[in-house]
Amino acid sequence: MKVAKFGGSSLSSAGQIKKVAKIIQDDPNIRHIVVSAPGKRDDADTKVTDLLIALFTNHRTGLDTQPAIEQILQRYAAIIDELGVNSGLLEKFEATLKDHLANIEDPERLLDALKSCGEDFNAQVIAEYFNSIGMKSRYWSPREVGILVSDEPSNARLLPESYEAIAKLKDTDTVNVIPGFFGYSKDGDIVTFSRGGSDITGAIIARGVGAELYENFTDQNYIYSAHPGIVKDPHPIEEITYREMRELSYSGFSIFHDEALEPLYEVKIPIMIKNTNDPKAGGTRIVSERGSVDEYPVIGVSGDDGFLSITIKQYLLNREVGYSRRFLQIFEDFGISIEHMPTGIDDISVLMRSDQFEGNNKFEEIMEVLETQLQPEWLHVEKDLAMVVVVGEGMRNAIGTAYRATKAFAENNISLQMINQGASEISMFFAIQAKDLDTAIHSLYHTYFDR
Amino acid sequence: MKVAKFGGSSLSSAGQIKKVAKIIQDDPNIRHIVVSAPGKRDDADTKVTDLLIALFTNHRTGLDTQPAIEQILQRYAAIIDELGVNSGLLEKFEATLKDHLANIEDPERLLDALKSCGEDFNAQVIAEYFNSIGMKSRYWSPREVGILVSDEPSNARLLPESYEAIAKLKDTDTVNVIPGFFGYSKDGDIVTFSRGGSDITGAIIARGVGAELYENFTDQNYIYSAHPGIVKDPHPIEEITYREMRELSYSGFSIFHDEALEPLYEVKIPIMIKNTNDPKAGGTRIVSERGSVDEYPVIGVSGDDGFLSITIKQYLLNREVGYSRRFLQIFEDFGISIEHMPTGIDDISVLMRSDQFEGNNKFEEIMEVLETQLQPEWLHVEKDLAMVVVVGEGMRNAIGTAYRATKAFAENNISLQMINQGASEISMFFAIQAKDLDTAIHSLYHTYFDR
Repeated sequence: MKVAKFGGSSLSSAGQIKKVAKIIQDDPNIRHIVVSAPGKRDDADTKVTDLLIALFTNHRTGLDTQPAIEQILQRYAAIIDELGVNSGLLEKFEATLKDHLANIEDPERLLDALKSCGEDFNAQVIAEYFNSIGMKSRYWSPREVGILVSDEPSNARLLPESYEAIAKLKDTDTVNVIPGFFGYSKDGDIVTFSRGGSDITGAIIARGVGAELYENFTDQNYIYSAHPGIVKDPHPIEEITYREMRELSYSGFSIFHDEALEPLYEVKIPIMIKNTNDPKAGGTRIVSERGSVDEYPVIGVSGDDGFLSITIKQYLLNREVGYSRRFLQIFEDFGISIEHMPTGIDDISVLMRSDQFEGNNKFEEIMEVLETQLQPEWLHVEKDLAMVVVVGEGMRNAIGTAYRATKAFAENNISLQMINQGASEISMFFAIQAKDLDTAIHSLYHTYFDR
Repeated sequence: MKVAKFGGSSLSSAGQIKKVAKIIQDDPNIRHIVVSAPGKRDDADTKVTDLLIALFTNHRTGLDTQPAIEQILQRYAAIIDELGVNSGLLEKFEATLKDHLANIEDPERLLDALKSCGEDFNAQVIAEYFNSIGMKSRYWSPREVGILVSDEPSNARLLPESYEAIAKLKDTDTVNVIPGFFGYSKDGDIVTFSRGGSDITGAIIARGVGAELYENFTDQNYIYSAHPGIVKDPHPIEEITYREMRELSYSGFSIFHDEALEPLYEVKIPIMIKNTNDPKAGGTRIVSERGSVDEYPVIGVSGDDGFLSITIKQYLLNREVGYSRRFLQIFEDFGISIEHMPTGIDDISVLMRSDQFEGNNKFEEIMEVLETQLQPEWLHVEKDLAMVVVVGEGMRNAIGTAYRATKAFAENNISLQMINQGASEISMFFAIQAKDLDTAIHSLYHTYFDR
């Protein structure tokens, strides 16, 4: 038995939803599906989730909310209309949106409740459509399923007791349609996962029902060894391990949510990435161990911009037991996540995502606390950095992986701000200037994959 | 006005001490000298400091202390005899040793007091000799000079108020002879610097008297870009910066104590490394900035063995704010210094010197605390590691430094356990297996210095 998750582009229109129905009809093993909110129909289109966020913003700033509500309902109206299902759903959707706006005061909770509607409405439409074409189906809200999560708005984590509740889905004879992206806190509030979190719901359901396979449908035939937007015709990955996938996803590969791997990794349920528009195409399989390690010690290169680094230098720093810890403590106190912290004898650098400092004064405050509490000899900030990773289980045994990477950088005149390779040896990380990101990915890709 | 420090090999015999006298006679600018304990006269010889440590060990284990005392006194007797100075000093030395043994109960304090005798006795002999040949001279004990240090046995740090006291040496018309390696705590106890700490005393005196130059006499004409015991005829360094010297000294270059740089670095007093046996030879100058950065972006390669690494892996570690800090806290609680801590998304490695675990159960205890407090998914220890550094102020601007290093490793089939380069970009660090250390230094040296 399989669980399938369909992403936003797979469900952006009635035509796409019909493809999904066909996939399920062709594979009776798919018993549970998790759905995203309708994505873009074309490049100029807007995702429903982004419309919902705009609705929230208008409400908060006292602007008229009606235009956003209408635009959202029109997206579903177009789908409902073409699928020929019960249009009474639209009234229900409008009432839900207005109910949230009227009754939820805490802004973080309201945002989560509104965002959840994209998936929630879509699941209801899809279940209705499946039944209308004779495919016995049922919509389940995450509350009915029992998806209990931590109370961290926009960043929920599953509470493990949920698995027991989810197992009840096994006893149904329907195709169960579950909205992705959110769960409920113990107090009954809607809390969403981080963006792209429908992948997480799919993984949770797959584990809860003990699926043999979790199929994750997107709009690409494969996961590729580098971003196809940067590298032309990149190497398609047939098999990749959970750990490799996580490193790549985390560092800029947006195709699969890195946190969606955890539930499956522990129980070794494999994941298959497939294309809704070409379901017979190969696909990428995410597994515990892959056989291609000798042929491809490196499986992919990835990168992302939007980083900054802070470096402090303090003479005899290495003698002061606890100085590094106090340095980290300051970032922790401000709730700032650190990505890397390379150390020298007398210096420590920390690399972090810049967007953590948007819309707040944390940067200035941290700088002040660093100055006053640590009184470092030298305090230096480097902005506009990018992070690049080279990932592969085979790097551990292959001599020269670092050599090939640094050669690629040198040949392209890219200066390395930081290098970090830990003992796990599944990834090697470099900080470079953001302007060099595409060149770096390009040259690294060709270094490891040109045959 | 200059301060000169003479190392153990420069003072190992009467013949060597005569060379020192000649150097001072030839350069009237040298007004204050700091002396080490007598070093080895030949490869089979034992340093006086090691004899003093053996005396301590015999005393602690209840063995007869007389043979060690006699061996120590014989070293000084031979010197005194050949220099033809007052042999009454020997009785005083014997009384001092016996007084320490009889009256100091705390073993750490006794060890420091005994170790200090090597330098202290030598300074008295040398001042006596200088006077005997008509060079007006005076022995100063660190207590008279006012060298106040923190109460950390075998690892003292200077208390800054000392500088004011030291300044009084400027008002003398004698050649002042000061024993290196130790100072006094506020309670009046003898506390030594870490091993090789006479360099530190020299630097402190140079700063206290506001010297124009600190001359550090050893048995080599230069500091070389790699250890001459590993690389044949290595490149002699004419100029090196404080920061470069510190990185090299710290990582295995034993020619100059890394902590001796601090006092001078702040006030920019340059250091000259010279050879007692060939004082006219070039020498290496340690300065704030060097002019040779373009020609030699890398100034040296160095390495040391005796390291181990501990790695923990924890899924979603990067989401747990504070996990890294808690990890470091555990090492801090056990007083273990960490050299490097490369991080991955889900893992942190720490590299540390293995000798911190000798003669105690800290390793087992730390492993247990890590298991119980952090409950990591994976905990891995790698022993018998070496650390290699490539150092140079020019690395910051030179593209390809990392490439050349990793190429050297790859060509020699050396697998890289860790790589770490922080934003200071003056050094790049690699952890490798200890067995590969010499090959690594060799190949790195030839990579950067073959012309």
